[in-house]
Amino acid sequence: MSSTFGKLLRVTTFGESHCSGVGAVLDGCPPRLSLDEADIQMQLDRRRPGQSRLSTDRQEADRVTILSGVENGMTLGTPISLLVANKDHIPGDYESMRSIPRPSHADFTYQIKYGIRAASGGGRSSARETIGRVAAGAIAEKYLNECHGVEIVAWVSAVGLIEAGPVNIEAIDRAAVDQNIVRCPDPTAAEQMATRIARLKDEGDSIGGIVSCVARNVPVGLGEPVFDKLEAKLAQAMLSIPATKGFEIGSGFSGAGMQGSVHNDPFVQKGARLGTATNNSGGALGGISNGEPIYFRVAFKPPATIKQPQETADFDGRPAVLEAKGRHDPCVVPRAVPIVEAMTALTLGDLLLRQRTRQD
Amino acid sequence: MSSTFGKLLRVTTFGESHCSGVGAVLDGCPPRLSLDEADIQMQLDRRRPGQSRLSTDRQEADRVTILSGVENGMTLGTPISLLVANKDHIPGDYESMRSIPRPSHADFTYQIKYGIRAASGGGRSSARETIGRVAAGAIAEKYLNECHGVEIVAWVSAVGLIEAGPVNIEAIDRAAVDQNIVRCPDPTAAEQMATRIARLKDEGDSIGGIVSCVARNVPVGLGEPVFDKLEAKLAQAMLSIPATKGFEIGSGFSGAGMQGSVHNDPFVQKGARLGTATNNSGGALGGISNGEPIYFRVAFKPPATIKQPQETADFDGRPAVLEAKGRHDPCVVPRAVPIVEAMTALTLGDLLLRQRTRQD
Amino acid sequence: MSSTFGKLLRVTTFGESHCSGVGAVLDGCPPRLSLDEADIQMQLDRRRPGQSRLSTDRQEADRVTILSGVENGMTLGTPISLLVANKDHIPGDYESMRSIPRPSHADFTYQIKYGIRAASGGGRSSARETIGRVAAGAIAEKYLNECHGVEIVAWVSAVGLIEAGPVNIEAIDRAAVDQNIVRCPDPTAAEQMATRIARLKDEGDSIGGIVSCVARNVPVGLGEPVFDKLEAKLAQAMLSIPATKGFEIGSGFSGAGMQGSVHNDPFVQKGARLGTATNNSGGALGGISNGEPIYFRVAFKPPATIKQPQETADFDGRPAVLEAKGRHDPCVVPRAVPIVEAMTALTLGDLLLRQRTRQD
Amino acid sequence: MSSTFGKLLRVTTFGESHCSGVGAVLDGCPPRLSLDEADIQMQLDRRRPGQSRLSTDRQEADRVTILSGVENGMTLGTPISLLVANKDHIPGDYESMRSIPRPSHADFTYQIKYGIRAASGGGRSSARETIGRVAAGAIAEKYLNECHGVEIVAWVSAVGLIEAGPVNIEAIDRAAVDQNIVRCPDPTAAEQMATRIARLKDEGDSIGGIVSCVARNVPVGLGEPVFDKLEAKLAQAMLSIPATKGFEIGSGFSGAGMQGSVHNDPFVQKGARLGTATNNSGGALGGISNGEPIYFRVAFKPPATIKQPQETADFDGRPAVLEAKGRHDPCVVPRAVPIVEAMTALTLGDLLLRQRTRQD
Repeated sequence: MSSTFGKLLRVTTFGESHCSGVGAVLDGCPPRLSLDEADIQMQLDRRRPGQSRLSTDRQEADRVTILSGVENGMTLGTPISLLVANKDHIPGDYESMRSIPRPSHADFTYQIKYGIRAASGGGRSSARETIGRVAAGAIAEKYLNECHGVEIVAWVSAVGLIEAGPVNIEAIDRAAVDQNIVRCPDPTAAEQMATRIARLKDEGDSIGGIVSCVARNVPVGLGEPVFDKLEAKLAQAMLSIPATKGFEIGSGFSGAGMQGSVHNDPFVQKGARLGTATNNSGGALGGISNGEPIYFRVAFKPPATIKQPQETADFDGRPAVLEAKGRHDPCVVPRAVPIVEAMTALTLGDLLLRQRTRQD
Repeated sequence: MSSTFGKLLRVTTFGESHCSGVGAVLDGCPPRLSLDEADIQMQLDRRRPGQSRLSTDRQEADRVTILSGVENGMTLGTPISLLVANKDHIPGDYESMRSIPRPSHADFTYQIKYGIRAASGGGRSSARETIGRVAAGAIAEKYLNECHGVEIVAWVSAVGLIEAGPVNIEAIDRAAVDQNIVRCPDPTAAEQMATRIARLKDEGDSIGGIVSCVARNVPVGLGEPVFDKLEAKLAQAMLSIPATKGFEIGSGFSGAGMQGSVHNDPFVQKGARLGTATNNSGGALGGISNGEPIYFRVAFKPPATIKQPQETADFDGRPAVLEAKGRHDPCVVPRAVPIVEAMTALTLGDLLLRQRTRQD
Repeated sequence: MSSTFGKLLRVTTFGESHCSGVGAVLDGCPPRLSLDEADIQMQLDRRRPGQSRLSTDRQEADRVTILSGVENGMTLGTPISLLVANKDHIPGDYESMRSIPRPSHADFTYQIKYGIRAASGGGRSSARETIGRVAAGAIAEKYLNECHGVEIVAWVSAVGLIEAGPVNIEAIDRAAVDQNIVRCPDPTAAEQMATRIARLKDEGDSIGGIVSCVARNVPVGLGEPVFDKLEAKLAQAMLSIPATKGFEIGSGFSGAGMQGSVHNDPFVQKGARLGTATNNSGGALGGISNGEPIYFRVAFKPPATIKQPQETADFDGRPAVLEAKGRHDPCVVPRAVPIVEAMTALTLGDLLLRQRTRQD
Repeated sequence: MSSTFGKLLRVTTFGESHCSGVGAVLDGCPPRLSLDEADIQMQLDRRRPGQSRLSTDRQEADRVTILSGVENGMTLGTPISLLVANKDHIPGDYESMRSIPRPSHADFTYQIKYGIRAASGGGRSSARETIGRVAAGAIAEKYLNECHGVEIVAWVSAVGLIEAGPVNIEAIDRAAVDQNIVRCPDPTAAEQMATRIARLKDEGDSIGGIVSCVARNVPVGLGEPVFDKLEAKLAQAMLSIPATKGFEIGSGFSGAGMQGSVHNDPFVQKGARLGTATNNSGGALGGISNGEPIYFRVAFKPPATIKQPQETADFDGRPAVLEAKGRHDPCVVPRAVPIVEAMTALTLGDLLLRQRTRQD
């Protein structure tokens, strides 16, 4: 396992879907940051299951407790331990999946890798693991925002083939994102998306989607050449989220189709700083933030666990039909929004602390 | 700087474009692997400038010397130090760029990050840094291939908007890739690509492209949940290559548009192992290799340094026109092929050693 | 903070003396190890305060809960999270120490380093932090013992100037160590030590001591040249324990006084393996275990918090007299025995996993 | 192998005794530090063999070349690569040692660990590996001294049973240390030491010794609780030097014999800072520097390679007599002085950069 992310601001997550709890230890958080559980709960509430008719019917409160590292509402600079209890699960739901590995799920690879796997639920591969990320990320985000004015906003920009219209990355905020249950700031697209997800839920099927994200007011200079470039660590952070298949920053894959004379972002003076007239770079040059908004997109595949019967094979290779039970999300992107924000905050927070070592 | 990649198989690169040399130290390479400089030179030759009329006119032999870690043609298990001397450069070429940061280049961000930058060339942000990666990657690849049968093949799948036709990822090999100077296995597309690159070179412009890559015969079980998932480390590895803007594995961004009932890869018995009938997963489930070919695509932007005059601003924010001199590649993807292969080998090699700790 | 130790077997501890709990996350523990809380509690019971009249009068049960990583009594290969609740403390005890930093304690340096410190108790510098180490170390030790036959035994070899007689490091076991409350296997010395500690407790003073440790049946080949040598990681591990001032392995400081012709350990065949006739090396050659018992000694200073009035200065530099309250140990070494064992197990466990990457 | 030390200021050494060269890559060195090869050569000259009649008769110039990371005499903030060529060796010297592992040397453990070892010399276990440390350490020391006023001085305080008289750690400097070939600031003891070493050299024997070290003007606050405490990282650093057997800081092992009322260092105002009246702590409280001089002692065993015939066993366990050839140091401590200084500088430099992340 490699359950730790970050070099100076370091999160370690723990917990399976059906053990007694999940959580994280955040080490390296700067001291003297005001912090209480409500600061963290806010993002956990956006992540929790059962928020809307579009997600799983499971209801979990996911209340966080700060076990250490904070005293009298202030961080001590010591490890902050965060715990969310697991609710009791319905063991029977996972019976059929003991002998038949779910297609496109981690059942098979965990079994081979470890020679054992959690008896029910996804174990560590379950989306519940991301609770620790969201909790720790909320702290990183609070630090970035209060001490450096950084703003991070993610939203759903596609569900299946339904794409949201253009978004103003200079202005988009969480209120705009949260105005509908899909977390898509384009109301027309949001409605179509909601309808589509609801229908697939009824059909026992699932659908993929895209989450977009912007980080504004990021200081110039973050990102460590050459292997820990800003975009490289963001890419790792995003592809470490369950169900992700792709990452692109700035012009991304469409930039591959362009000429340099068009793609290059000319420099222009912007108030006190040197900015760029366009932002095909997505806020990073040579792996280092340049002061422009950092924006990127993350592709999520459709959830693997669906109720429709699937022709597949069991662990012994014999043909089998899997009919998954349990209550699973038909589309992960609405709940993935705070996860993408959390991983962005953890990435930027770590790179920011690393850059501080160079400042006199 | 963070010039080290990997946890057990660890490469550290060093060198600026115009210092006395560039290279790498590879620590953690297993002992008793047969190795000499020719094993490494092969890939450096595919990366070096001046290979064809499509790349920069600079001619550099880029001969590698093994300084340590190998004795009598065998690795000792100790750090392997690799050095490639830099040729003399033409200092005048970089004069105009001292006061005007190149648009979409790292001149600006390096200057702010470090308060200093290499007087000429791109310093560490130069593509010459990748020499160390290719040299170390060739060793990792030799280990993977000889000891585990792993095959890694990358190729150019798009230049600008010209896309190659479908490629058989089960069969594609380097001979097929190297049959033309673009390194695109589709001869018709390759010719169009070559024509397009040549014309843009004449026009002093540049163009982006896409490199695809497959790794075959990768053992099941590689990838460390949860933050060092196979796809997460590959994403970091690829986005750490200069000029990259995106990464997708398996179905990638197109998977976001699909339904689970279509996207899921059913299990089927394949000889002695449990395989999958389709491979939308791209060879990884839950961050762990599943025995199917690992395949992914990497987007490269057009090179930032172009000869066409560009309206921009100087470091002080005053409007300026930049006319870059020097000999730069109009399109990086043909030479990026061995770099993508090298980073793939370094990523898989590290994850393979990490998995070995679990085997009895 | 740097609350993580180890590269492949990695422990992260958390918790202050007076927050809601202390504990650890152990990542990288091999899967399929049988484990329950009793395996861990055993060593926590040897560490807990209030065991005997020689230690602090505080009584804390220090019951451990496994939160994750274990299912049906078997490790899953995922992070094992361990929690011990803190009991309520007596806040008034620490009042006088708010303005006067305790001499030779971390009050002063924590305040300067972090600009804040825990309002009471030692915060992270408290010995309660070691609960997480002992809990995680018990797991590491179980793995080493069950899978590789490794035996680790520590004991008190000096309290103040009272030294234990010679100990047979091939045979000493925990039963012999635990036969008295000092944990010194020499009964005569133990009685003198107990008398001395008891008297100093009455006098409100404290005393230092030495813990010795042996690890037997350690496979040949553990230790990573050059910076993570076996003795180097052991030295770090031991000097990371609160109140330690020195570490020596094998002949140690006395070896500095010897000639090579006397100090060198000649090789001899021992059954199936090549051993050494003497063991001045302490079980390590060139940073790598050689199959002989690894033995070393760790020096502990007298605890800094004493009841006797001390002339010192307050945080503002004004002369002040500190009369510490609270219930503190007059001598840490009896309770340090399981801590030394835990850190030894964590060190050896990590190096063992690292060496497994080299085995075919 | 684990040839990298440090987290933010990171040195990676490479090279065997008899390959083409040895050296290091120093990553994370702050930019804009003035640096040229003479800054580094100074300490290499104090380390090189053949300096005096007391060391090996081998003569090696050990001239360093900076390959990268420095331009126009200034560091760029990029990896600094340092290379020292190896001179040709006399292969025949090592013939007898092919089949007979040297007692108390790494021949045996390297062979078992890696299944191969360098055909001659000690390979990576050779003292030549420390050239990379001394070169990189000289840079770290320059940074610490120029930017923070830190002074690091090591000296020989014992050779065999001959101990130097008391040294004023507030005042001792390198001129005083270098006034004799033993590097002992007590001239009377130095003469006895020199005589003893010379005689043992004639006799084909060797002798151990102790190096003491002080670091002055170290800022308050360096050291990362809990596992990367100042004393823990120093202990690792020192025990990673070949031939070391022990480390103690401040009162060290003698502190284990003391009472708290005597050992505690009372606080007193010292000019603008809060200091301590005594310094049994050795400059660290709770793992964090407190502004007082950091001082510690390192025990070195007698070199294992001696010319006297030794009764031992060959690799197959058969009794054998080893008569080592080659030119080896009879006592390493005079040449170990700059190595101890280098490792001290690398340790403090890394901890200093880590603490800078907390400063506003």
